[in-house]
Amino acid sequence: MRAWSRERRAEGGIIAFVPTMGGLHDGHLSLVRAARDLADHVVVSIYVNPTQFAPDEDFGSYPRDEERDLAALEAQEVAAVFVPETLYEDPLTWIQVTELDARLCGGSRPDFFRGVATVVAKLFHIVEPDVAVFGDKDFQQRRVIERMVADLDMPIRIVGMPIVREPDGLAMSSRNLRLDPDARKRAVAISESLDLAATQIAAGERDVARVTAAMNAHIEGAGGRVDYVALVDPETLAEQTSITGPVRAAVAASFGGVRLIDNRAI
Amino acid sequence: MRAWSRERRAEGGIIAFVPTMGGLHDGHLSLVRAARDLADHVVVSIYVNPTQFAPDEDFGSYPRDEERDLAALEAQEVAAVFVPETLYEDPLTWIQVTELDARLCGGSRPDFFRGVATVVAKLFHIVEPDVAVFGDKDFQQRRVIERMVADLDMPIRIVGMPIVREPDGLAMSSRNLRLDPDARKRAVAISESLDLAATQIAAGERDVARVTAAMNAHIEGAGGRVDYVALVDPETLAEQTSITGPVRAAVAASFGGVRLIDNRAI
Repeated sequence: MRAWSRERRAEGGIIAFVPTMGGLHDGHLSLVRAARDLADHVVVSIYVNPTQFAPDEDFGSYPRDEERDLAALEAQEVAAVFVPETLYEDPLTWIQVTELDARLCGGSRPDFFRGVATVVAKLFHIVEPDVAVFGDKDFQQRRVIERMVADLDMPIRIVGMPIVREPDGLAMSSRNLRLDPDARKRAVAISESLDLAATQIAAGERDVARVTAAMNAHIEGAGGRVDYVALVDPETLAEQTSITGPVRAAVAASFGGVRLIDNRAI
Repeated sequence: MRAWSRERRAEGGIIAFVPTMGGLHDGHLSLVRAARDLADHVVVSIYVNPTQFAPDEDFGSYPRDEERDLAALEAQEVAAVFVPETLYEDPLTWIQVTELDARLCGGSRPDFFRGVATVVAKLFHIVEPDVAVFGDKDFQQRRVIERMVADLDMPIRIVGMPIVREPDGLAMSSRNLRLDPDARKRAVAISESLDLAATQIAAGERDVARVTAAMNAHIEGAGGRVDYVALVDPETLAEQTSITGPVRAAVAASFGGVRLIDNRAI
Protein backbone atom coordinates (compact mmCIF):
# COMPACT_ATOMS: atom_id res chain seq x y z
CA MET A 1 0.00 0.00 0.00
CA ARG A 2 2.75 2.41 1.01
CA ALA A 3 4.80 1.63 -2.11
CA TRP A 4 1.75 2.42 -4.24
CA SER A 5 1.25 5.76 -2.46
CA ARG A 6 4.91 6.68 -2.77
CA GLU A 7 4.87 6.01 -6.52
CA ARG A 8 1.86 8.28 -6.93
CA ARG A 9 3.48 10.99 -4.84
CA ALA A 10 6.77 10.70 -6.74
CA GLU A 11 4.75 11.49 -9.88
CA GLY A 12 3.47 14.64 -8.16
CA GLY A 13 0.07 13.19 -7.27
CA ILE A 14 -1.96 14.29 -4.23
CA ILE A 15 -3.55 11.46 -2.26
CA ALA A 16 -6.79 11.70 -0.29
CA PHE A 17 -7.73 8.95 2.14
CA VAL A 18 -11.11 7.82 3.47
CA PRO A 19 -10.77 5.26 6.28
CA THR A 20 -13.93 3.19 6.80
CA MET A 21 -15.13 0.08 8.60
CA GLY A 22 -17.08 -0.98 5.49
CA GLY A 23 -20.87 -1.30 5.47
CA LEU A 24 -20.70 1.58 3.02
CA HIS A 25 -23.70 3.87 2.60
CA ASP A 26 -24.33 7.25 0.98
CA GLY A 27 -22.58 8.97 3.90
CA HIS A 28 -19.33 7.19 3.06
CA LEU A 29 -19.80 7.84 -0.64
CA SER A 30 -20.18 11.56 0.04
CA LEU A 31 -16.75 11.40 1.71
CA VAL A 32 -15.31 9.64 -1.33
CA ARG A 33 -16.71 12.33 -3.61
CA ALA A 34 -15.26 15.05 -1.37
CA ALA A 35 -11.91 13.23 -1.44
CA ARG A 36 -12.02 13.12 -5.23
CA ASP A 37 -12.43 16.90 -5.30
CA LEU A 38 -9.41 17.34 -2.99
CA ALA A 39 -6.85 15.09 -4.65
CA ASP A 40 -5.61 13.25 -7.72
CA HIS A 41 -6.02 9.80 -6.18
CA VAL A 42 -8.50 8.50 -3.60
CA VAL A 43 -7.63 5.62 -1.29
CA VAL A 44 -10.37 3.99 0.79
CA SER A 45 -9.62 1.50 3.54
CA ILE A 46 -12.08 -1.10 4.79
CA TYR A 47 -11.16 -2.52 8.18
CA VAL A 48 -13.40 -3.31 11.14
CA ASN A 49 -10.94 -2.31 13.84
CA PRO A 50 -11.15 -4.72 16.79
CA THR A 51 -9.39 -2.39 19.24
CA GLN A 52 -12.22 0.13 19.27
CA PHE A 53 -14.81 -2.41 20.39
CA ALA A 54 -15.21 -3.44 24.03
CA PRO A 55 -15.73 -7.18 24.66
CA ASP A 56 -19.50 -6.64 25.20
CA GLU A 57 -19.90 -4.57 22.02
CA ASP A 58 -20.91 -5.50 18.48
CA PHE A 59 -17.55 -6.28 16.84
CA GLY A 60 -18.82 -9.73 15.81
CA SER A 61 -22.11 -8.48 14.36
CA TYR A 62 -20.82 -5.24 12.82
CA PRO A 63 -22.20 -5.14 9.25
CA ARG A 64 -19.70 -6.61 6.76
CA ASP A 65 -20.28 -6.98 3.01
CA GLU A 66 -16.96 -6.64 1.22
CA GLU A 67 -18.24 -7.50 -2.26
CA ARG A 68 -20.98 -4.88 -2.09
CA ASP A 69 -18.54 -2.31 -0.68
CA LEU A 70 -15.97 -2.96 -3.42
CA ALA A 71 -18.63 -2.64 -6.11
CA ALA A 72 -19.77 0.69 -4.66
CA LEU A 73 -16.18 1.98 -4.60
CA GLU A 74 -15.51 0.79 -8.14
CA ALA A 75 -18.49 2.83 -9.29
CA GLN A 76 -16.88 5.85 -7.58
CA GLU A 77 -13.62 5.25 -9.45
CA VAL A 78 -11.41 5.25 -6.37
CA ALA A 79 -7.75 4.58 -7.16
CA ALA A 80 -7.10 1.98 -4.47
CA VAL A 81 -8.98 0.10 -1.77
CA PHE A 82 -6.90 -1.08 1.18
CA VAL A 83 -8.44 -4.12 2.89
CA PRO A 84 -5.95 -5.45 5.44
CA GLU A 85 -6.70 -8.83 6.95
CA THR A 86 -5.32 -7.64 10.27
CA LEU A 87 -3.32 -4.63 11.42
CA TYR A 88 -2.23 -5.94 14.80
CA GLU A 89 0.31 -8.36 16.16
CA ASP A 90 0.26 -8.30 19.98
CA PRO A 91 0.19 -4.50 20.13
CA LEU A 92 1.71 -2.75 23.16
CA THR A 93 1.50 0.79 21.78
CA TRP A 94 -1.53 3.05 22.20
CA ILE A 95 -2.24 6.64 21.32
CA GLN A 96 -4.44 8.50 23.75
CA VAL A 97 -5.94 11.90 23.09
CA THR A 98 -6.65 12.76 26.70
CA GLU A 99 -9.59 14.96 27.78
CA LEU A 100 -11.26 14.76 24.36
CA ASP A 101 -11.40 10.96 24.69
CA ALA A 102 -13.22 11.08 28.02
CA ARG A 103 -16.15 13.21 26.90
CA LEU A 104 -19.46 12.16 25.28
CA CYS A 105 -18.98 8.60 23.98
CA GLY A 106 -15.88 8.27 26.18
CA GLY A 107 -18.16 7.94 29.21
CA SER A 108 -19.68 4.63 28.17
CA ARG A 109 -16.84 3.56 25.82
CA PRO A 110 -13.65 4.28 27.81
CA ASP A 111 -11.16 2.62 25.40
CA PHE A 112 -12.98 3.51 22.18
CA PHE A 113 -11.01 6.59 21.13
CA ARG A 114 -7.71 5.00 22.11
CA GLY A 115 -8.54 2.28 19.59
CA VAL A 116 -9.66 4.80 16.98
CA ALA A 117 -6.64 7.08 17.34
CA THR A 118 -4.22 4.16 17.26
CA VAL A 119 -5.68 2.49 14.17
CA VAL A 120 -5.98 5.80 12.30
CA ALA A 121 -2.33 6.59 13.07
CA LYS A 122 -1.37 3.14 11.75
CA LEU A 123 -3.42 3.66 8.59
CA PHE A 124 -1.89 7.13 8.11
CA HIS A 125 1.61 5.65 8.40
CA ILE A 126 0.76 2.95 5.85
CA VAL A 127 -1.24 4.97 3.32
CA GLU A 128 0.72 8.25 3.73
CA PRO A 129 -2.08 10.47 2.40
CA ASP A 130 -1.88 14.24 1.99
CA VAL A 131 -5.43 14.70 3.21
CA ALA A 132 -7.92 12.47 5.04
CA VAL A 133 -11.69 12.89 5.03
CA PHE A 134 -13.94 12.11 8.00
CA GLY A 135 -17.70 12.41 8.36
CA ASP A 136 -19.21 14.62 11.01
CA LYS A 137 -21.62 11.88 12.09
CA ASP A 138 -18.63 10.84 14.22
CA PHE A 139 -17.91 14.41 15.30
CA GLN A 140 -16.01 13.48 18.44
CA GLN A 141 -13.88 11.10 16.38
CA ARG A 142 -13.01 13.91 13.98
CA ARG A 143 -11.99 16.17 16.87
CA VAL A 144 -9.85 13.39 18.38
CA ILE A 145 -8.13 12.77 15.03
CA GLU A 146 -7.61 16.48 14.36
CA ARG A 147 -6.05 16.88 17.78
CA MET A 148 -3.84 13.80 17.37
CA VAL A 149 -2.59 15.07 14.01
CA ALA A 150 -1.83 18.51 15.46
CA ASP A 151 -0.22 17.22 18.66
CA LEU A 152 1.92 14.59 16.89
CA ASP A 153 2.83 16.86 13.92
CA MET A 154 1.46 14.39 11.40
CA PRO A 155 1.81 15.79 7.86
CA ILE A 156 -1.86 15.26 6.99
CA ARG A 157 -4.76 17.65 6.53
CA ILE A 158 -8.02 16.53 8.12
CA VAL A 159 -11.26 17.50 6.40
CA GLY A 160 -14.68 17.01 8.02
CA MET A 161 -17.80 16.58 5.90
CA PRO A 162 -21.46 17.13 6.84
CA ILE A 163 -23.71 14.31 8.00
CA VAL A 164 -25.76 12.61 5.29
CA ARG A 165 -29.30 11.77 6.43
CA GLU A 166 -32.15 9.51 5.40
CA PRO A 167 -35.24 11.34 4.09
CA ASP A 168 -36.82 11.30 7.59
CA GLY A 169 -33.68 12.79 9.17
CA LEU A 170 -31.98 9.71 10.64
CA ALA A 171 -28.21 10.05 10.26
CA MET A 172 -26.82 7.42 7.91
CA SER A 173 -24.86 4.74 9.77
CA SER A 174 -23.75 1.21 9.02
CA ARG A 175 -25.55 0.21 12.20
CA ASN A 176 -28.92 1.38 10.80
CA LEU A 177 -29.00 -1.97 8.97
CA ARG A 178 -29.38 -3.66 12.33
CA LEU A 179 -32.55 -1.76 13.32
CA ASP A 180 -35.77 -3.75 13.00
CA PRO A 181 -38.56 -1.88 11.12
CA ASP A 182 -40.19 -0.62 14.32
CA ALA A 183 -36.93 0.59 15.89
CA ARG A 184 -35.90 2.14 12.56
CA LYS A 185 -39.10 4.24 12.57
CA ARG A 186 -38.73 5.31 16.19
CA ALA A 187 -34.99 6.12 15.85
CA VAL A 188 -35.83 9.33 14.00
CA ALA A 189 -36.43 10.76 17.48
CA ILE A 190 -32.64 11.17 17.75
CA SER A 191 -32.31 13.70 14.94
CA GLU A 192 -35.62 15.26 15.98
CA SER A 193 -34.18 15.88 19.44
CA LEU A 194 -31.31 17.82 17.83
CA ASP A 195 -33.77 19.91 15.83
CA LEU A 196 -35.76 20.48 19.01
CA ALA A 197 -32.63 21.83 20.73
CA ALA A 198 -31.93 24.13 17.78
CA THR A 199 -35.52 25.42 17.82
CA GLN A 200 -35.49 26.08 21.56
CA ILE A 201 -32.16 27.90 21.39
CA ALA A 202 -33.29 29.90 18.36
CA ALA A 203 -36.31 30.91 20.45
CA GLY A 204 -34.02 32.31 23.16
CA GLU A 205 -33.52 29.40 25.55
CA ARG A 206 -30.06 29.67 27.16
CA ASP A 207 -30.31 27.11 29.96
CA VAL A 208 -28.66 23.87 28.86
CA ALA A 209 -30.36 21.71 31.50
CA ARG A 210 -33.78 22.66 30.14
CA VAL A 211 -32.74 21.94 26.55
CA THR A 212 -31.21 18.54 27.34
CA ALA A 213 -34.21 17.59 29.49
CA ALA A 214 -36.47 18.22 26.50
CA MET A 215 -34.17 16.20 24.20
CA ASN A 216 -34.09 13.36 26.71
CA ALA A 217 -37.86 13.35 27.07
CA HIS A 218 -38.33 13.31 23.31
CA ILE A 219 -36.06 10.30 22.78
CA GLU A 220 -37.43 8.39 25.77
CA GLY A 221 -40.94 9.21 24.63
CA ALA A 222 -40.14 7.37 21.40
CA GLY A 223 -38.90 4.34 23.35
CA GLY A 224 -35.18 5.09 23.09
CA ARG A 225 -32.66 4.42 25.83
CA VAL A 226 -30.48 7.53 26.18
CA ASP A 227 -26.73 7.11 26.75
CA TYR A 228 -26.15 10.87 26.75
CA VAL A 229 -27.55 14.11 25.42
CA ALA A 230 -25.23 17.09 25.71
CA LEU A 231 -24.48 20.54 24.40
CA VAL A 232 -20.72 20.87 24.16
CA ASP A 233 -18.05 23.33 23.12
CA PRO A 234 -17.23 22.48 19.48
CA GLU A 235 -13.46 22.58 20.13
CA THR A 236 -12.96 21.11 23.60
CA LEU A 237 -16.18 19.07 23.70
CA ALA A 238 -16.64 20.30 27.28
CA GLU A 239 -20.27 20.24 28.40
CA GLN A 240 -21.79 23.69 28.62
CA THR A 241 -24.25 24.78 31.30
CA SER A 242 -25.53 27.84 29.49
CA ILE A 243 -25.53 28.86 25.84
CA THR A 244 -23.08 31.71 25.26
CA GLY A 245 -21.88 30.91 21.73
CA PRO A 246 -21.76 28.13 19.16
CA VAL A 247 -22.34 24.65 20.60
CA ARG A 248 -22.53 21.14 19.26
CA ALA A 249 -25.60 19.20 20.34
CA ALA A 250 -24.75 15.50 20.62
CA VAL A 251 -26.78 12.39 21.34
CA ALA A 252 -26.13 8.70 21.85
CA ALA A 253 -29.18 6.50 22.29
CA SER A 254 -30.25 2.91 21.66
CA PHE A 255 -33.34 1.78 19.81
CA GLY A 256 -34.07 -1.91 19.80
CA GLY A 257 -30.64 -2.62 21.27
CA VAL A 258 -28.75 -0.74 18.53
CA ARG A 259 -26.70 2.20 19.77
CA LEU A 260 -26.78 5.22 17.46
CA ILE A 261 -25.12 8.64 17.63
CA ASP A 262 -25.90 11.96 16.02
CA ASN A 263 -24.98 15.61 16.42
CA ARG A 264 -25.68 19.07 15.09
CA ALA A 265 -23.98 22.46 15.16
CA ILE A 266 -26.13 25.15 16.82
CA MET B 1 12.39 20.94 8.32
CA ARG B 2 9.91 18.66 6.59
CA ALA B 3 10.11 20.63 3.34
CA TRP B 4 13.90 20.23 3.41
CA SER B 5 13.59 16.47 3.93
CA ARG B 6 11.03 16.12 1.17
CA GLU B 7 13.26 17.96 -1.30
CA ARG B 8 16.15 15.61 -0.49
CA ARG B 9 13.90 12.59 -0.83
CA ALA B 10 12.44 13.83 -4.12
CA GLU B 11 16.03 13.87 -5.41
CA GLY B 12 16.34 10.22 -4.39
CA GLY B 13 18.32 10.92 -1.21
CA ILE B 14 18.17 8.67 1.87
CA ILE B 15 17.89 10.51 5.19
CA ALA B 16 19.26 9.28 8.51
CA PHE B 17 18.18 10.97 11.73
CA VAL B 18 19.87 11.21 15.13
CA PRO B 19 17.59 12.75 17.77
CA THR B 20 19.51 14.17 20.74
CA MET B 21 18.99 16.37 23.78
CA GLY B 22 22.29 18.16 23.08
CA GLY B 23 25.23 18.03 25.48
CA LEU B 24 26.92 16.14 22.67
CA HIS B 25 29.79 13.77 23.47
CA ASP B 26 31.65 11.04 21.60
CA GLY B 27 28.71 8.69 22.07
CA HIS B 28 26.47 11.01 20.06
CA LEU B 29 29.17 11.54 17.47
CA SER B 30 29.49 7.77 16.99
CA LEU B 31 25.76 7.78 16.15
CA VAL B 32 26.30 10.58 13.64
CA ARG B 33 29.12 8.62 11.99
CA ALA B 34 26.91 5.51 11.83
CA ALA B 35 24.12 7.62 10.32
CA ARG B 36 26.52 8.93 7.69
CA ASP B 37 27.32 5.36 6.65
CA LEU B 38 23.60 4.54 6.33
CA ALA B 39 22.34 7.49 4.30
CA ASP B 40 23.05 10.35 1.93
CA HIS B 41 22.02 13.05 4.39
CA VAL B 42 22.24 13.15 8.20
CA VAL B 43 19.81 15.22 10.26
CA VAL B 44 20.49 15.76 13.97
CA SER B 45 17.93 17.30 16.30
CA ILE B 46 18.79 19.06 19.54
CA TYR B 47 15.84 19.41 21.89
CA VAL B 48 15.68 18.94 25.65
CA ASN B 49 12.22 17.42 25.78
CA PRO B 50 10.31 18.71 28.80
CA THR B 51 7.69 15.93 28.76
CA GLN B 52 10.19 13.22 29.69
CA PHE B 53 11.23 14.95 32.91
CA ALA B 54 9.19 14.71 36.11
CA PRO B 55 8.76 17.94 38.08
CA ASP B 56 11.44 16.85 40.60
CA GLU B 57 13.94 15.88 37.89
CA ASP B 58 16.80 17.78 36.25
CA PHE B 59 15.08 19.43 33.27
CA GLY B 60 16.31 22.85 34.41
CA SER B 61 19.91 21.77 34.98
CA TYR B 62 20.21 19.37 32.04
CA PRO B 63 23.50 20.26 30.26
CA ARG B 64 22.88 22.72 27.40
CA ASP B 65 25.58 24.23 25.17
CA GLU B 66 24.13 24.87 21.73
CA GLU B 67 27.16 26.65 20.30
CA ARG B 68 29.51 23.84 21.24
CA ASP B 69 27.03 21.24 19.92
CA LEU B 70 26.63 23.02 16.59
CA ALA B 71 30.39 23.28 16.17
CA ALA B 72 30.79 19.54 16.84
CA LEU B 73 28.08 18.73 14.28
CA GLU B 74 29.58 21.07 11.70
CA ALA B 75 32.86 19.18 12.03
CA GLN B 76 30.91 15.98 11.31
CA GLU B 77 29.43 17.51 8.15
CA VAL B 78 25.82 16.78 9.03
CA ALA B 79 23.38 18.08 6.42
CA ALA B 80 20.93 19.71 8.81
CA VAL B 81 20.52 20.40 12.53
CA PHE B 82 16.94 20.79 13.77
CA VAL B 83 16.76 22.93 16.91
CA PRO B 84 13.10 23.65 17.66
CA GLU B 85 12.37 26.25 20.30
CA THR B 86 9.41 24.22 21.46
CA LEU B 87 7.50 21.24 20.10
CA TYR B 88 4.41 21.51 22.30
CA GLU B 89 1.32 23.65 22.49
CA ASP B 90 -0.98 22.37 25.28
CA PRO B 91 -0.58 18.73 24.20
CA LEU B 92 -3.41 16.28 24.90
CA THR B 93 -2.00 13.37 22.88
CA TRP B 94 0.36 10.77 24.32
CA ILE B 95 1.88 7.58 22.96
CA GLN B 96 2.32 4.80 25.46
CA VAL B 97 4.29 1.65 24.82
CA THR B 98 2.73 -0.40 27.58
CA GLU B 99 4.61 -3.15 29.44
CA LEU B 100 8.00 -2.04 28.07
CA ASP B 101 7.45 1.41 29.62
CA ALA B 102 6.87 0.00 33.10
CA ARG B 103 10.10 -1.98 33.39
CA LEU B 104 13.55 -0.85 34.60
CA CYS B 105 13.56 2.98 34.52
CA GLY B 106 9.74 2.94 34.29
CA GLY B 107 9.65 2.00 37.99
CA SER B 108 11.09 5.29 39.24
CA ARG B 109 10.17 7.38 36.14
CA PRO B 110 6.54 6.44 35.42
CA ASP B 111 5.87 9.04 32.67
CA PHE B 112 9.37 9.04 31.18
CA PHE B 113 8.84 6.70 28.22
CA ARG B 114 5.48 8.24 27.42
CA GLY B 115 7.35 11.53 26.98
CA VAL B 116 10.13 9.86 24.97
CA ALA B 117 7.80 7.95 22.63
CA THR B 118 5.62 11.01 22.04
CA VAL B 119 8.46 13.39 21.23
CA VAL B 120 10.23 10.85 19.02
CA ALA B 121 6.99 10.28 17.07
CA LYS B 122 6.65 14.06 16.64
CA LEU B 123 10.25 14.35 15.45
CA PHE B 124 9.75 11.43 13.05
CA HIS B 125 6.66 13.12 11.59
CA ILE B 126 8.58 16.39 11.14
CA VAL B 127 11.92 15.06 9.88
CA GLU B 128 10.51 12.08 7.93
CA PRO B 129 13.76 10.09 7.96
CA ASP B 130 14.30 6.71 6.33
CA VAL B 131 16.38 5.49 9.24
CA ALA B 132 16.96 6.70 12.81
CA VAL B 133 19.96 5.88 14.98
CA PHE B 134 19.80 5.40 18.75
CA GLY B 135 22.57 4.59 21.22
CA ASP B 136 22.39 1.48 23.35
CA LYS B 137 23.28 3.45 26.48
CA ASP B 138 19.52 4.07 26.52
CA PHE B 139 18.71 0.46 25.71
CA GLN B 140 15.19 0.52 27.11
CA GLN B 141 14.51 3.67 25.10
CA ARG B 142 15.63 1.90 21.93
CA ARG B 143 13.32 -1.05 22.65
CA VAL B 144 10.40 1.33 23.33
CA ILE B 145 11.03 3.18 20.06
CA GLU B 146 11.46 -0.04 18.07
CA ARG B 147 8.20 -1.33 19.45
CA MET B 148 6.37 1.95 18.79
CA VAL B 149 7.59 1.98 15.19
CA ALA B 150 6.51 -1.63 14.65
CA ASP B 151 3.14 -1.26 16.39
CA LEU B 152 2.25 2.01 14.65
CA ASP B 153 3.61 0.94 11.23
CA MET B 154 5.94 3.91 11.03
CA PRO B 155 8.01 3.78 7.82
CA ILE B 156 11.35 4.14 9.61
CA ARG B 157 14.17 1.70 10.27
CA ILE B 158 15.63 1.87 13.78
CA VAL B 159 19.33 1.14 14.21
CA GLY B 160 20.96 0.70 17.62
CA MET B 161 24.64 1.42 18.16
CA PRO B 162 27.01 0.20 20.90
CA ILE B 163 27.70 2.24 24.02
CA VAL B 164 30.77 4.47 23.86
CA ARG B 165 32.74 4.49 27.11
CA GLU B 166 35.34 6.64 28.85
CA PRO B 167 38.78 4.99 29.22
CA ASP B 168 37.86 3.72 32.72
CA GLY B 169 34.62 2.17 31.46
CA LEU B 170 32.03 4.80 32.47
CA ALA B 171 29.35 5.00 29.78
CA MET B 172 29.39 8.39 28.06
CA SER B 173 26.42 10.53 29.08
CA SER B 174 25.58 14.21 28.97
CA ARG B 175 24.91 13.93 32.69
CA ASN B 176 28.54 12.91 33.38
CA LEU B 177 29.35 16.63 33.18
CA ARG B 178 27.40 17.11 36.38
CA LEU B 179 29.49 14.64 38.41
CA ASP B 180 31.96 16.24 40.81
CA PRO B 181 35.50 14.79 40.55
CA ASP B 182 34.97 12.39 43.47
CA ALA B 183 31.61 11.13 42.21
CA ARG B 184 33.03 10.86 38.69
CA LYS B 185 35.78 8.54 39.97
CA ARG B 186 33.40 6.37 42.01
CA ALA B 187 30.78 6.15 39.23
CA VAL B 188 32.94 3.64 37.36
CA ALA B 189 31.44 1.09 39.79
CA ILE B 190 28.36 1.04 37.55
CA SER B 191 30.12 -0.39 34.49
CA GLU B 192 32.26 -2.57 36.77
CA SER B 193 29.07 -4.10 38.19
CA LEU B 194 28.04 -5.09 34.64
CA ASP B 195 31.43 -6.68 34.03
CA LEU B 196 31.10 -8.47 37.36
CA ALA B 197 27.77 -9.94 36.26
CA ALA B 198 29.29 -11.07 32.95
CA THR B 199 32.21 -12.69 34.76
CA GLN B 200 29.98 -14.54 37.24
CA ILE B 201 27.69 -15.81 34.50
CA ALA B 202 30.66 -16.85 32.36
CA ALA B 203 31.87 -18.81 35.38
CA GLY B 204 28.58 -20.73 35.48
CA GLU B 205 26.39 -18.71 37.84
CA ARG B 206 22.71 -19.10 36.80
CA ASP B 207 20.93 -17.64 39.80
CA VAL B 208 19.92 -14.05 39.03
CA ALA B 209 19.39 -13.06 42.67
CA ARG B 210 23.01 -13.90 43.49
CA VAL B 211 24.30 -11.94 40.49
CA THR B 212 22.23 -8.85 41.21
CA ALA B 213 23.15 -8.98 44.91
CA ALA B 214 26.82 -8.85 43.92
CA MET B 215 26.19 -5.96 41.52
CA ASN B 216 24.27 -4.08 44.20
CA ALA B 217 26.99 -4.61 46.76
CA HIS B 218 29.65 -3.41 44.34
CA ILE B 219 27.84 -0.15 43.54
CA GLU B 220 26.87 0.53 47.15
CA GLY B 221 30.42 -0.27 48.21
CA ALA B 222 31.55 2.60 45.97
CA GLY B 223 29.03 4.95 47.61
CA GLY B 224 26.37 4.75 44.90
CA ARG B 225 22.63 4.78 45.56
CA VAL B 226 21.08 1.98 43.49
CA ASP B 227 17.76 2.61 41.74
CA TYR B 228 17.74 -0.86 40.17
CA VAL B 229 20.02 -3.64 39.03
CA ALA B 230 18.38 -6.26 36.84
CA LEU B 231 18.99 -9.01 34.33
CA VAL B 232 16.23 -8.79 31.74
CA ASP B 233 15.06 -10.48 28.57
CA PRO B 234 16.55 -8.42 25.70
CA GLU B 235 13.22 -8.30 23.84
CA THR B 236 10.53 -7.97 26.51
CA LEU B 237 12.76 -6.44 29.22
CA ALA B 238 11.07 -8.81 31.69
CA GLU B 239 13.22 -9.54 34.74
CA GLN B 240 14.66 -13.02 34.73
CA THR B 241 15.07 -15.19 37.81
CA SER B 242 17.55 -17.62 36.30
CA ILE B 243 19.89 -17.39 33.34
CA THR B 244 18.66 -19.60 30.50
CA GLY B 245 19.80 -17.58 27.48
CA PRO B 246 20.93 -14.12 26.43
CA VAL B 247 20.13 -11.38 28.96
CA ARG B 248 20.68 -7.69 29.23
CA ALA B 249 22.20 -6.56 32.52
CA ALA B 250 20.93 -3.08 33.39
CA VAL B 251 21.71 -0.61 36.16
CA ALA B 252 20.48 2.76 37.31
CA ALA B 253 22.32 4.35 40.21
CA SER B 254 23.12 7.80 41.57
CA PHE B 255 26.54 9.13 42.47
CA GLY B 256 26.70 12.54 44.11
CA GLY B 257 23.02 13.10 43.29
CA VAL B 258 23.45 12.42 39.55
CA ARG B 259 21.42 9.50 38.24
CA LEU B 260 23.25 7.40 35.65
CA ILE B 261 22.27 4.31 33.66
CA ASP B 262 24.24 1.61 31.91
CA ASN B 263 23.69 -1.85 30.46
CA ARG B 264 25.46 -4.73 28.82
CA ALA B 265 24.47 -7.76 26.73
CA ILE B 266 25.45 -11.06 28.37
